Amino acid sequence: MKFDLTATDPKSFARAGVLHTDHGEIQTPIFMPVGTAGSVKAVHQRELELDIQAQIILGNTYHLYLRPGLGVLEKAGGLHKFNGWNRPILTDSGGYQVYSLAANRKIVDEGVTFKSHIDGSKHHFTPENVMDIQRSIGADIIMAFDECTPYPCDYKYAKDSMQLTHKWLKRCVDRIHSTEPKYGYEQVLFPIVQGSVYKDLREQSAEFIASQNQPGNAIGGLSVGEPHEDMYAMTSLVCGILPKDKPRYLMGVGTPENILECIALGIDMFDCVMPTRNARNGMLFTTEGIINIRNEKWKDDLSPIDAGLGGYVSTFHSKAYLRHLIINKEILGAQIASIHNLTFYLWLVKEARKRIEDGTFAEWKNKMVKIVSQRL
Amino acid sequence: MKFDLTATDPKSFARAGVLHTDHGEIQTPIFMPVGTAGSVKAVHQRELELDIQAQIILGNTYHLYLRPGLGVLEKAGGLHKFNGWNRPILTDSGGYQVYSLAANRKIVDEGVTFKSHIDGSKHHFTPENVMDIQRSIGADIIMAFDECTPYPCDYKYAKDSMQLTHKWLKRCVDRIHSTEPKYGYEQVLFPIVQGSVYKDLREQSAEFIASQNQPGNAIGGLSVGEPHEDMYAMTSLVCGILPKDKPRYLMGVGTPENILECIALGIDMFDCVMPTRNARNGMLFTTEGIINIRNEKWKDDLSPIDAGLGGYVSTFHSKAYLRHLIINKEILGAQIASIHNLTFYLWLVKEARKRIEDGTFAEWKNKMVKIVSQRL
Repeated sequence: MKFDLTATDPKSFARAGVLHTDHGEIQTPIFMPVGTAGSVKAVHQRELELDIQAQIILGNTYHLYLRPGLGVLEKAGGLHKFNGWNRPILTDSGGYQVYSLAANRKIVDEGVTFKSHIDGSKHHFTPENVMDIQRSIGADIIMAFDECTPYPCDYKYAKDSMQLTHKWLKRCVDRIHSTEPKYGYEQVLFPIVQGSVYKDLREQSAEFIASQNQPGNAIGGLSVGEPHEDMYAMTSLVCGILPKDKPRYLMGVGTPENILECIALGIDMFDCVMPTRNARNGMLFTTEGIINIRNEKWKDDLSPIDAGLGGYVSTFHSKAYLRHLIINKEILGAQIASIHNLTFYLWLVKEARKRIEDGTFAEWKNKMVKIVSQRL
Repeated sequence: MKFDLTATDPKSFARAGVLHTDHGEIQTPIFMPVGTAGSVKAVHQRELELDIQAQIILGNTYHLYLRPGLGVLEKAGGLHKFNGWNRPILTDSGGYQVYSLAANRKIVDEGVTFKSHIDGSKHHFTPENVMDIQRSIGADIIMAFDECTPYPCDYKYAKDSMQLTHKWLKRCVDRIHSTEPKYGYEQVLFPIVQGSVYKDLREQSAEFIASQNQPGNAIGGLSVGEPHEDMYAMTSLVCGILPKDKPRYLMGVGTPENILECIALGIDMFDCVMPTRNARNGMLFTTEGIINIRNEKWKDDLSPIDAGLGGYVSTFHSKAYLRHLIINKEILGAQIASIHNLTFYLWLVKEARKRIEDGTFAEWKNKMVKIVSQRL
């Protein structure tokens, strides 16, 4: 998997690049819609491709392992064939879900034992079997099996957890290197930097992760409740250590503002459930700011959802119609709002890319951050 | 609104025709997807038009009157402008919803007083204001304000109710004839035959409705729990009385089998929530029979949802993928199943139309009824 850095911004650490995968190119910086169980919620694959212009989507190992299960996925020839998405797919390792399960999991050196949220059945994840599972799912980009620490997290726990993540990473690397692609196309490993909000741990982790020399690197354990300043400080620190010639993925981030700020710090890839989850609750991200479409003020506003965005739903439907659908709990409301928000997120990173290419990113970013974070 | 009868089947009462409206032509027999609150549940307007090839959709007066309300609809210039559906729209009169409210409504000669299911607020529907409301919604086809009797229903109640419906109809006709189209295009009234399952009442009602000489006629009060034999007997009886040169609409019907049988009896228009409601529960109507996609047997069936149907989702996605989505309560499952079922319903009436045109409907219908009603 080759990464070409094609432009860097003179006044920030922002970069533009192209990540070449066997399922096509990814233009960075990029936002990756989250398709937890093999579907980006309320969005058709055709809409992802043609309307939203997504270039890569996520799948969740924990969820896909439980349902539909590896038997069905292997029989289909992997997730791409199963869900009809023929562009790149990245799968998380299940580390985050296992962390979310809290009471229902037990972490030891060997791996994690957990109970299914569906039927309470007992399962065991190890660095080795999580690599195998992601190969079977058919991910183009496989994430290392890590522990995602909560926030706040005391120093000792953060340090021990980071060391466990590093030990597990060696086992992930060994497993990936000793196994073959499952379906004929390349499947690469991205290690994950941990260390909570502690500078020395983050430095140590970033150096260890960089030393593994994998095709891309990720930053985990952020956007879990810490102040934005901490997120930016850790991201900045880690970006200074991770190799320049490989893509950097900041996991689970974030608001449009977060994304712009972290692009400026040198991040190339993002994912977050926010655009789809918030869409279902009626929160819209637009080129003019943030809208709570449930608000009475939009009741008879017949202007387009976002005249500045273009695309399938955003100029076709009015704010009043979308409000009506969301208030009435019509499924189409979730559909339109999700398409709109994802179209906006993909538009935002594409615009950022253009500004990086023409050398005007820093000024544009400072202006845009104010616009996209204001409440309308 | 002109109706051209273009073909009749030699061995049944099936007819093919074209209904000309100011929002375009409707090829009959036709199935009309239900868009209760201005949205066909889980289906985009683009999909209705391009994938499902719907020619006309329904809106519900009761629901649209309560939300978004007439103020918003009038400001938008009617429902077509509000929801972006530019083909014909038929609105029911609220009679069925008022009947469903049972404990929360009171019927007197003047009209019906009812409490909103949303906030308990009190409202009053009369034949006159229901005509005005449907004009404001912007329906191409306005349904008369009637009382839909439940099943079972004793003779006296059915007779009194029918007489009330007839009295109301005269007031509907007067109101329609003394008011103008709201938005410049033609808006016509369809009266509704009632009379429960009593032959003499149905005859009497059909004769009265026919005598009103409106551009189309409907049969209500069926598909409310009575045996199919009664539905067919009443439909047959009424079709023998209603004028041949005007479209006949059987309200709220039904299964694919019901639709084929009633086309054979002379019905031209159908609506039903079944294809979308059952889709959301995982029941699929296909060219090979009925599928409960939740069944374990489809878990790893990677064959298309319906290879015989064509269209956007039905040949693109597998049964196993759709099952996975429905089991996981993914919104995309409801979307795909709804598009599939509606595509099937529209395909079924289009096929019926072809057979009527080439004179082979009766034989084809007898064969198809067996296929579409079998459980796979």
